[in-house]
Amino acid sequence: MRVSKFLLATVRETPADAETVSHKLMLRAGMIRKLAAGVYSWLPLGLRVLRKVETIVREEMNRADAQEVLMPAVQPAELWQESGRWDQYGPELLRLKDRHQRNFCIGPTHEEIITDLIRHEIKSYRQLPANFYQIQMKFRDEVRPRFGVMRAREFLMKDAYSFHASEASLKETYQVMHATYTRIFERTGLAFRPVAADTGAIGGAVSHEFQVLADSGEDAIAYCPDSDYAANVEIAEALAPVQPRAKPNQNMEKVSTPGKTTCQEVAQLLGLPLERTVKAVAVVHKHELYLLLLRGDHTLNEIKTKKILGEFRLATEEEITNLVGCRPGYIGPTMLHPQPHKHFSKPASAIHLIVDRTVAQMSDFVCGANEVGFHLTGVNFGRDVLEPEKIADIRNVVVGDPSPDGKGRLDIRRGIEVGHIFQLGTKYSAAMQATVLDEAGKAVIMPMGCYGIGVSRVVAAAIEQNHDDNGIVWPDAIAPFHLALVPIGYAKSEAVRAAVDKLYTDLTAAGFEVLLDDRDERPGVIFADMDLIGIPHRLVIGEKGLAKSVAEYKGRRDKQPTEIPLADVIGEMRNKMK
Amino acid sequence: MRVSKFLLATVRETPADAETVSHKLMLRAGMIRKLAAGVYSWLPLGLRVLRKVETIVREEMNRADAQEVLMPAVQPAELWQESGRWDQYGPELLRLKDRHQRNFCIGPTHEEIITDLIRHEIKSYRQLPANFYQIQMKFRDEVRPRFGVMRAREFLMKDAYSFHASEASLKETYQVMHATYTRIFERTGLAFRPVAADTGAIGGAVSHEFQVLADSGEDAIAYCPDSDYAANVEIAEALAPVQPRAKPNQNMEKVSTPGKTTCQEVAQLLGLPLERTVKAVAVVHKHELYLLLLRGDHTLNEIKTKKILGEFRLATEEEITNLVGCRPGYIGPTMLHPQPHKHFSKPASAIHLIVDRTVAQMSDFVCGANEVGFHLTGVNFGRDVLEPEKIADIRNVVVGDPSPDGKGRLDIRRGIEVGHIFQLGTKYSAAMQATVLDEAGKAVIMPMGCYGIGVSRVVAAAIEQNHDDNGIVWPDAIAPFHLALVPIGYAKSEAVRAAVDKLYTDLTAAGFEVLLDDRDERPGVIFADMDLIGIPHRLVIGEKGLAKSVAEYKGRRDKQPTEIPLADVIGEMRNKMK
Repeated sequence: MRVSKFLLATVRETPADAETVSHKLMLRAGMIRKLAAGVYSWLPLGLRVLRKVETIVREEMNRADAQEVLMPAVQPAELWQESGRWDQYGPELLRLKDRHQRNFCIGPTHEEIITDLIRHEIKSYRQLPANFYQIQMKFRDEVRPRFGVMRAREFLMKDAYSFHASEASLKETYQVMHATYTRIFERTGLAFRPVAADTGAIGGAVSHEFQVLADSGEDAIAYCPDSDYAANVEIAEALAPVQPRAKPNQNMEKVSTPGKTTCQEVAQLLGLPLERTVKAVAVVHKHELYLLLLRGDHTLNEIKTKKILGEFRLATEEEITNLVGCRPGYIGPTMLHPQPHKHFSKPASAIHLIVDRTVAQMSDFVCGANEVGFHLTGVNFGRDVLEPEKIADIRNVVVGDPSPDGKGRLDIRRGIEVGHIFQLGTKYSAAMQATVLDEAGKAVIMPMGCYGIGVSRVVAAAIEQNHDDNGIVWPDAIAPFHLALVPIGYAKSEAVRAAVDKLYTDLTAAGFEVLLDDRDERPGVIFADMDLIGIPHRLVIGEKGLAKSVAEYKGRRDKQPTEIPLADVIGEMRNKMK
Repeated sequence: MRVSKFLLATVRETPADAETVSHKLMLRAGMIRKLAAGVYSWLPLGLRVLRKVETIVREEMNRADAQEVLMPAVQPAELWQESGRWDQYGPELLRLKDRHQRNFCIGPTHEEIITDLIRHEIKSYRQLPANFYQIQMKFRDEVRPRFGVMRAREFLMKDAYSFHASEASLKETYQVMHATYTRIFERTGLAFRPVAADTGAIGGAVSHEFQVLADSGEDAIAYCPDSDYAANVEIAEALAPVQPRAKPNQNMEKVSTPGKTTCQEVAQLLGLPLERTVKAVAVVHKHELYLLLLRGDHTLNEIKTKKILGEFRLATEEEITNLVGCRPGYIGPTMLHPQPHKHFSKPASAIHLIVDRTVAQMSDFVCGANEVGFHLTGVNFGRDVLEPEKIADIRNVVVGDPSPDGKGRLDIRRGIEVGHIFQLGTKYSAAMQATVLDEAGKAVIMPMGCYGIGVSRVVAAAIEQNHDDNGIVWPDAIAPFHLALVPIGYAKSEAVRAAVDKLYTDLTAAGFEVLLDDRDERPGVIFADMDLIGIPHRLVIGEKGLAKSVAEYKGRRDKQPTEIPLADVIGEMRNKMK
């Protein structure tokens, strides 16, 4: 491709409304343009990358015997009513009426449509397992779309749905999809991890996310460097300490902590390690107050807590003050005491306690005294607080925690979720009565799997992972062009023009995707543009080099250029791209 | 592909609600399934064909230096308001509100979006011409979607938009697109014609349709077998007769024609050729009545008439009776007479006459007497009717009319519009102020072209053109599979299975797309399915043939199979597919 025939829409200024690196660089490189909040046009440069990701996804899905279909974007309400999601799905489901005032939505996902299709088309276990996928624009009416195509309203997704005659078959296909996703992301050239994950609103029992590793990622991934354990911190298990709880060694004392409402502040005031403090998080579940006890340096994991407690919310200051008799910042569990004690008079009312595994093993700890301006030290279960009835894993793991697989200690990295696979089970097939006849001729509900990849998000994630101060640094596999061919003096030098045109023809014939910058611009401008748009390899041809029969080569990450004999260019480029 | 891993969803019964051959066959072959009125899912078989058409389109657009982009399906109202189409476009524009109650529509076309994009990205004539295309699902909320994907609401379209610094440049790119479309449809293997066409609601001065020839087509195409003239009958010019009008030879006579209200009936009653009769079509334009005079065997061309007259509608019976003094069926132009005459007393009031070129040359003709139950014979202009002030081409051409290029006589065939290219001019760029700086540094409005292909419609059109009683007959280039490999006794015969598996591997390695029917079905069932889904080539392997080392070959259009030595199969198949 010659730049003279290509919409190279690079921009020098950093766009004001872009928050993330990938959003800024996609705008500056001229990959995308915003049409409305969360709605983007893909310019030729961006679309080339998007299509490369799409092609890798398609090839690997086909290799895994998944069958490509294409379902409508505009979907009738009836099927969503049948599954129950017409009412459950919030305003993210973009609803509309057609000219005859019939209800439709723009599909944010296609479980209903594929389940309806397959319940009509597949009648026998002999036709199973079957796995169907599509690559298609979806729409989710996010309340706050942001980060460019990372969290857009209209986005390109690969969604796949598998149907089975048994749970065992579902598990088998799930493993095939796990391996397929691994191959897909390996082929993109990105650093990624499959991690165990929460199934969330989609439902089902088992799921894995595929996370592109990037410091800017919204997700935290706990993994064990010494094993293949990896899970989203949302679900990574914090094991119970193996050491038994130490005997009480201190008397409980009330200490004055005026104005100190956080564990950090209290620990600092008292000259104690933060690990000796316990915080009480007050939440409400079914109109009752729960105190969740966490070590001072730990944070609450809402997903784990929800699995134990069901839906809950943080208690308001008023609720806490009413029930505990003290405002937040100084509350603690000692109202649930084994016997009357001088430091607390108010009896335990309708307050429940859930104690994190780590806290349950602590002794002589520090906690709020349920009196403004005071904390307690030397607090112990059994003596000062009732032995916890409910001990559970309700905290986020931290670096150094033992790996749940027992093979080492956890580390944590940030990631961007680009894929998610689910063992859905019968959530949709049961609601929509999608059955097949089994070997005995009996109608059985088909277990289903579903498997998504945010194709447009992969593009943004690739940039979050691969960029420097000069712009994007594409991996070869998804670069919009493999190499930039930069003539010095294309308009002026006959020799340069001839050499560059020949090289362009030869490289293109050899299968390279070449961007020949034939603009009449200064080399500095061209180099800056080629760096900004992230072309991984660059060849410069000038009269000086031609005199020596060499081209100047620079990889996008190289500090300095090197010389390549013109005669060796194609072979050398092949080597560099493996 | 093995049928055991493929959703072959053939259906024996003809679907009740399908009217056209292509709709029936696409349902029966398991290519598509209806989700809602005019909204279809593409099953794996159908999608393979759709993707083949899409690939041909993409390759040829790229070859023509068009740049692929991808614009949003969900579009904000503001740009449509700017172009004026938010109000002009009827209920076919599917409108909706997002969660913040902002107005959007689902794009039926993208002139507004691309014009907005380009007015921001392209600033100088040096960046022009530039041509951008996308291949994308569109939505038009047709009042009566029908014929399956032929006139669906959601459909796959390739739309392209070119931008220019001059009209001359637009004309040049238009010619490139004309040639590109010709290559695209040649590559599909379909019989088609580019025809001059009306620009309709899209606007612009010049346009051509690309019509796939099929007897069931909705469009009539006039073409000259002796030249390359071809035009949609909507605009094909009916030349004025070269012979001068003959002198009057008869006296005007009133004849009784009770109950005969059509020219056919009157001609038959009088024993005269239909070509001697003249019919008057009464229409209303700006509250005034116009009589349009056509020869009895000709039909009114509304598009031509609209160009001459502006918007008009047929007059109601009441309007005709009031103004002409006679009800329809017996009206004629003689109220516009040169002098008083015994046969008509009512003077010409606010009635206007537009006379078709053919009628203007007629003498001694038959027309209505403006009196129920009577016609006039021997009517002549100048004597009985005022010489026409307005003579125009307002009729549809018929077979045998002289070709407008003067090179022979017209024939007429039916066609299905699958592509349409337009010289838009500045309709959108002027409304939206899309300018560039010209060589003199002056802002000029960019002339635009636009170029559409109904990708999903091509699939249906291909079937309308290529089918027989047994099903679809795909051209090689867009067949879902090149060949069907049919084993006789795959489940039972070790030898058959080994030979077929080897052939499958070899053919696939040689680049053929093979559908191996490994089902345990009777050969008759398999043959019927392979014929129905239209696979162009079929190879049958059975024990009998293996004994002779031959495969049985049958082309989809062949009456009888022939034998091919197994060793020659790949070479022979290459020959058959050229």
